[in-house]
Amino acid sequence: MKVAKFGGSSVANAEQLRKVANIISDDKERKVIVVSAPGKRFSEDIKVTDLLINMGEAYLSDQPYEDKLEIVLNRFKEITTELELSTDVIDEIKLGVERIFASDQSDELKMDAIKATGEDSLAKVLSAYLQSIGMDAVYLNPKEAGIFVSDTPGSAQILDESYDKLYELRNRNEIVVIPGFFGYTKDGKLITFSRGGSDITGSIVAAGVKADLYENFTDVDSVYCVNPNIVKNPREITSLTYKEMRELSYAGFSVFHDEALIPAFKADIPVCIKNTNNPQAMGTIIVSKKEPQPNPVVGIASDTGFVSIYVSKYLMNRELGFGRKLLTILEDEGISFEHTPSGIDDISIIVRASKMPKEKEERVIARIKEELHPDTVHVDRDLALIMVVGEGMDSTIGLADKATHAFAKANVNLEMINQGSSEVSMMFGIKASRVEEAVRSLYDMFFCDK
Amino acid sequence: MKVAKFGGSSVANAEQLRKVANIISDDKERKVIVVSAPGKRFSEDIKVTDLLINMGEAYLSDQPYEDKLEIVLNRFKEITTELELSTDVIDEIKLGVERIFASDQSDELKMDAIKATGEDSLAKVLSAYLQSIGMDAVYLNPKEAGIFVSDTPGSAQILDESYDKLYELRNRNEIVVIPGFFGYTKDGKLITFSRGGSDITGSIVAAGVKADLYENFTDVDSVYCVNPNIVKNPREITSLTYKEMRELSYAGFSVFHDEALIPAFKADIPVCIKNTNNPQAMGTIIVSKKEPQPNPVVGIASDTGFVSIYVSKYLMNRELGFGRKLLTILEDEGISFEHTPSGIDDISIIVRASKMPKEKEERVIARIKEELHPDTVHVDRDLALIMVVGEGMDSTIGLADKATHAFAKANVNLEMINQGSSEVSMMFGIKASRVEEAVRSLYDMFFCDK
Repeated sequence: MKVAKFGGSSVANAEQLRKVANIISDDKERKVIVVSAPGKRFSEDIKVTDLLINMGEAYLSDQPYEDKLEIVLNRFKEITTELELSTDVIDEIKLGVERIFASDQSDELKMDAIKATGEDSLAKVLSAYLQSIGMDAVYLNPKEAGIFVSDTPGSAQILDESYDKLYELRNRNEIVVIPGFFGYTKDGKLITFSRGGSDITGSIVAAGVKADLYENFTDVDSVYCVNPNIVKNPREITSLTYKEMRELSYAGFSVFHDEALIPAFKADIPVCIKNTNNPQAMGTIIVSKKEPQPNPVVGIASDTGFVSIYVSKYLMNRELGFGRKLLTILEDEGISFEHTPSGIDDISIIVRASKMPKEKEERVIARIKEELHPDTVHVDRDLALIMVVGEGMDSTIGLADKATHAFAKANVNLEMINQGSSEVSMMFGIKASRVEEAVRSLYDMFFCDK
Repeated sequence: MKVAKFGGSSVANAEQLRKVANIISDDKERKVIVVSAPGKRFSEDIKVTDLLINMGEAYLSDQPYEDKLEIVLNRFKEITTELELSTDVIDEIKLGVERIFASDQSDELKMDAIKATGEDSLAKVLSAYLQSIGMDAVYLNPKEAGIFVSDTPGSAQILDESYDKLYELRNRNEIVVIPGFFGYTKDGKLITFSRGGSDITGSIVAAGVKADLYENFTDVDSVYCVNPNIVKNPREITSLTYKEMRELSYAGFSVFHDEALIPAFKADIPVCIKNTNNPQAMGTIIVSKKEPQPNPVVGIASDTGFVSIYVSKYLMNRELGFGRKLLTILEDEGISFEHTPSGIDDISIIVRASKMPKEKEERVIARIKEELHPDTVHVDRDLALIMVVGEGMDSTIGLADKATHAFAKANVNLEMINQGSSEVSMMFGIKASRVEEAVRSLYDMFFCDK
């Protein structure tokens, strides 16, 4: 049994939904379908969920919302017209929205229900369409499916008992279409997952039904081994482990929402990235373990936007608690640190620039000076991190040699090397202006035949 | 003006003291001499200070001490006899000890005074000897010299006002011989520095008189660029910076007590390591800055006895405070950590094995599991650290390449690479069993002409 989830771009309009229908009919094992709300049809377009949020905020601040509702309805009308479906579903959407507004729930809960309307409606539209072309498919509301969550609007947590209930879906013969992004509390309140939550639904459902495979249909053929904006036509990754995926997505590969995969990961369900627009392509499969590969490196990720805080003090390593006090200062400011390469008398803290705007930086530096009395402290705002990732990393002699050689060939100075904790990656810090040359050189070293 | 300090082995017996006298007379600038207590004359010998401690402990626990005192006196008698000096100084030593015992000070202060007897007596013997061979030399007690310290027996801290008083030594014509290791509180109590404190005295005096050079006479020609037990006849280091010295001494090069150099460092006094037994050898000079060298690497230090605690948890980097809580657990157990290479979902804490005996390790692991709920935690007790050190490190492209290549050539797997915080070193972690091969390969790479 396979669970197939279709993301926003895959269900953005009628043309896409036709592809979705073909994909479902192509494989009898695709029995459980999870869908997002319609995404962008073209790059300047607005996602349906954003339109809904906009409408909801207008209503809740006592401003006119009717024309915003109309825009949403038109998005669905476009689809139902082209797919020659009845307009019943459009009326349902309108009624549903008005019922939500009229209900006596809190504003928070009303907002969650409004946000979920896009997924819910698209699921109804899709199942209507599948029926119209003769497939045995039904819409299934998350409450009926068994997606029970905590009472935390906007950041639902799945309750353990859901998984047993979801397993019962295996007993059904027909194809079920479940809207992603939301679940219900035991007492019937609609609660959404955090943004990007259709991925979470898909993962939860795949874990619940103990799927053989969870297919995540998106708009790329596969995960590439390097950013295709830096290296043209890079190699595709056939398979990667969860650990490798985490390391790569850390520094730039964001195929989907990180936390979304946890349920599938825990239940050991393989995940496959597929392209709705090219479903025949193999895609990239994500597994918990894989056989050792000839090439120990699976990918190279890179990201700019890192900052380094450098602190030095003679005999720093004799001061018990120095490192901990330094981290506490950052924690007080809500800054999660990324890494802390340290020397004998010095330490650098690597943080994401977005976590430390100028005024926070000033406070942090002032506290460091006042509380720790360092010899020097300075901030370097110009840092990029490059991760060389692969399960073969920890047992392959000479990988660090090759990687550092690639940087030397590109004449790039290494500001930082951090390797050893992770068994699947090596991390390098360089000046942000040199990222492209460095990545190309690494690609050449690890992915091109000599 | 030069300050020359002579360590234990340099003043162990009459033969050594003759060499000391020659060294002093060889250079008119050597006006201020600091001495240790007589050290070992041969490898199974006992240092005079240890004999004194032994004697002091016997007395303070009401046990017979007289024969222990006799042994101490004989050590000095041996010297005075061979150097044909009067035995007055022996009587002085005996009287001094008995006066200390009879005084109404605390046991703690009595012990400090006993401990200091070795340096104090040797300074008197040396100045008597210098006078006997016609040199214009005097013994100078630290109180007269101006070495004023805090009232903290066994771990004196120099008071700032000492420096101005010490500066007055420049006005003297004669050579002054000052015993190392102790000073006096403003109200006249004798307080010792921590062990190895003659180095501290020398450094303080050199800073106080604003010496042109502080010569530290010991029993090696120079600091070598690598452990001579691993590489035979290694290159000698001509000059190193304070930073480089700190990095090297971290992982094995311990020519002298680290903290000892702080006063000289702060006053920007160059320090020269010299060999009493071969004073013509250039020695190694330690400075605060030096010109860029053709070889950016100055030395390779290595040390076994490190332990790594590895902790991993999916989405660890999202948990604000995870790293800080981990460090707090170690701090509660009094374990100072050395380094924390971290990945995305994992972190390793490198500590010295001596800081974490088995029962502490068990407590730490138990707390980590209980408080942090990691996916995995394990300890690797087999780790060695190798530091490649040199001021040229941070601006030389390709150094990491060469270093990692040296490891690959020796077929040594790199467990850890930590570079970036320190601007003068790169740190590598490997299995302790491979240290010698790795160090030889690095030596070959960085110090042998091709």
